[in-house]
Amino acid sequence: MTQAPLTDHQTLSDEALAQLFTQARTHNGWLDREVPDALLRQAVTLALWGPTSANCLPARFVFVRSKEAKQRLAPALAPGNLDKTMAAPATAIVAHDLAFFEHLPRLYPATDARSWFAGNQPLIETTAFRNATLQGGYFLLALRAVGLDAGPMSGFDNAKVDAEFFPDGKVKSNFLINIGYGDPAKLYPRGPRFAFEEAASIL
Amino acid sequence: MTQAPLTDHQTLSDEALAQLFTQARTHNGWLDREVPDALLRQAVTLALWGPTSANCLPARFVFVRSKEAKQRLAPALAPGNLDKTMAAPATAIVAHDLAFFEHLPRLYPATDARSWFAGNQPLIETTAFRNATLQGGYFLLALRAVGLDAGPMSGFDNAKVDAEFFPDGKVKSNFLINIGYGDPAKLYPRGPRFAFEEAASIL
Repeated sequence: MTQAPLTDHQTLSDEALAQLFTQARTHNGWLDREVPDALLRQAVTLALWGPTSANCLPARFVFVRSKEAKQRLAPALAPGNLDKTMAAPATAIVAHDLAFFEHLPRLYPATDARSWFAGNQPLIETTAFRNATLQGGYFLLALRAVGLDAGPMSGFDNAKVDAEFFPDGKVKSNFLINIGYGDPAKLYPRGPRFAFEEAASIL
Repeated sequence: MTQAPLTDHQTLSDEALAQLFTQARTHNGWLDREVPDALLRQAVTLALWGPTSANCLPARFVFVRSKEAKQRLAPALAPGNLDKTMAAPATAIVAHDLAFFEHLPRLYPATDARSWFAGNQPLIETTAFRNATLQGGYFLLALRAVGLDAGPMSGFDNAKVDAEFFPDGKVKSNFLINIGYGDPAKLYPRGPRFAFEEAASIL
């Protein structure tokens, strides 16, 4: 593929929009079908191309796949999220690195962006949370783009996950995503959405 | 289009992945080409299909298009973001509604989700910020999916934007996105990205 920016400005096909948005669903049950590590790696690599403030890339992704790792995660889960998470082929912990700014001399060499953050804890925390959550959104759509299904969740004890998976205290969990090939038979009814005018306005 | 969930689980074409991720760029200059309101509406409608916690949909999108509206935005912008924002065919304020939970009886009728939030201000704020930022990520990729280019920015005075555009105090600005057809001649060099192992691990 060429590195030149695209200039054709076409809307994606209806099939692609369906896979990403209009027919994609949050899954709660999983088919017995293997999820190759290569697809998880591809989804992360795609998501990393998404924009962040000063290219700060604060998101960290931990894939909980093995039985041992799942057992470490289990005590932190809300009861309603336990069984589906244990059954998922993989569960991603989407987290952010509060030391993200130490990488800015390499990631954003145009200026001394590290100095914007060093010592400014509120700015560090807001920037890490905002941008890593954006990256979580890119990652969720990247999973769908490589043909996987996702089941994102906020129902867990962040402090327990942090103590177990990020004991150095610099990385903080944000949300979880169960990943696999979803079982359509286990979908819940789809929730309604706002009409454009309820969520947006043009001035 | 059928409403049945997709089950073919294909990876999108290289062209689609390029448009969304691998060749998409953050734009700073804009071609003299009209952006129809219909494309902005389509991008919002696509993004609203993305998952949020209990379907809470806290994001609000204000498109600043007219000269008058741009002049209201100008005093809040960081100097480096002023000219490109005034020149952009549209600028979206991505915001969140702290009263989002009042809509849950309609958006998530399965249970009394409103009661999880009412009176719990820290949970309201975290849920609104996390989920509206995720929706901002979906929206940014939806803009690209309909063939538009985006230039997201955090460099502005949130309090000034809130006072000017959301005077009732219930809606808070998060970040801005300039929108149009990007001028490839005005791109900056692309920043490097992490390798998979620097941002992710598989346990």
